[in-house]
Amino acid sequence: MALHTDKHYEAELQELKEEILKMGGIVEEMMVLAMKSLLDRDTSLAGSVIQKDSPVNRLEMEIDELCLKLLALHQPAASDLRFITIGLKITKDLERMGDLAVNICQAVMELNKEESLKPYIDLPLLAEKSQKMVKEALDSFVRRDALQANTVCVNDDEVDELKDKIINELVGIMKVKPDSISRAVRLISIARHLERIADHATNIAELVIFMVQGKDIRHGNG
Amino acid sequence: MALHTDKHYEAELQELKEEILKMGGIVEEMMVLAMKSLLDRDTSLAGSVIQKDSPVNRLEMEIDELCLKLLALHQPAASDLRFITIGLKITKDLERMGDLAVNICQAVMELNKEESLKPYIDLPLLAEKSQKMVKEALDSFVRRDALQANTVCVNDDEVDELKDKIINELVGIMKVKPDSISRAVRLISIARHLERIADHATNIAELVIFMVQGKDIRHGNG
Repeated sequence: MALHTDKHYEAELQELKEEILKMGGIVEEMMVLAMKSLLDRDTSLAGSVIQKDSPVNRLEMEIDELCLKLLALHQPAASDLRFITIGLKITKDLERMGDLAVNICQAVMELNKEESLKPYIDLPLLAEKSQKMVKEALDSFVRRDALQANTVCVNDDEVDELKDKIINELVGIMKVKPDSISRAVRLISIARHLERIADHATNIAELVIFMVQGKDIRHGNG
Repeated sequence: MALHTDKHYEAELQELKEEILKMGGIVEEMMVLAMKSLLDRDTSLAGSVIQKDSPVNRLEMEIDELCLKLLALHQPAASDLRFITIGLKITKDLERMGDLAVNICQAVMELNKEESLKPYIDLPLLAEKSQKMVKEALDSFVRRDALQANTVCVNDDEVDELKDKIINELVGIMKVKPDSISRAVRLISIARHLERIADHATNIAELVIFMVQGKDIRHGNG
């Protein structure tokens, strides 16, 4: 096994952060465009978002390989070991978020075959809150900031409540307007996808707290 | 850092396999009981399944710690390194499956407040297929069997089709029976939870294929 200087190691660790943020950036963009395709009824845009899923899947594998390389060649110490292994978990959350953005676009494509069902109620607000959570969760990971991560976890309850509110309102619409049922079911599925994206952001935030607290505990014992 | 014999290492690797299977076993049991609580309209059983979520969450953290320990103390070689890091990802999939079983039970508890909406159509069949995928995915991981993992991935399409069929039938019922809407929406959410459990099984299977193929590629390059 070749000897590696600290400089190589630091550069690769930096690359890991950057690649995770890059993957997160694509996923965030997919979410924004998926919601735009819903609001603008833009089937072609929805299709183009679906195309972005392959690069996300590729990035997941590349980042995993980078993590394996860091683990195999540099035998990182406790705190970095935790950072890298949590990086491995985060790529899975990001990949699932990409899938969920694709699911939203698939629902949009079906919705666009029928007349628009107004109003979209609080869906754009739900999307905005979820996106913010994704951004902050990734930020807290890169900065190893448990306080920021904690804010993300707290916001998850708000998102759950908003999703329930949206579903209840859509159920109400279905009851008085039976010809809206298929469309309302698709909008409910979009609300669930958005809530699940927020769940993944919460997962990431919980991992960050575990990462930082684990380090603290180890310090206490060390 | 203490020196560890190969015997210790092998024992800890074996422990990792057993802990992951134990976690998988609890999650499988949660799925079976969640469906039983639906079919038997057993709210108390649904409640007891929800209680099982804490041990699952604890196991996730314990297994993660075990993986970190293996990585930190034994600097495993390529093939085991991949096995351990994929173990880290699998615990996240299992933890999510536990959450989904909880979500099913929450829906059951709401459904049981109203009269039963018969029939449950193909939901039990969907649950059975998803459970089988979970079992086989974990089995393929422990046996490092890419062929079995591939079967799991193929079954995922079947599960997706069945979920779509169930949703379409429930939408049909809602249209002719508006007072069924709330219950049908909950049953649709259960179908989606089951399909998502199958998705996680597929995730695990894909990781297994990656693990085995990654090893093969490395052999080819080595």
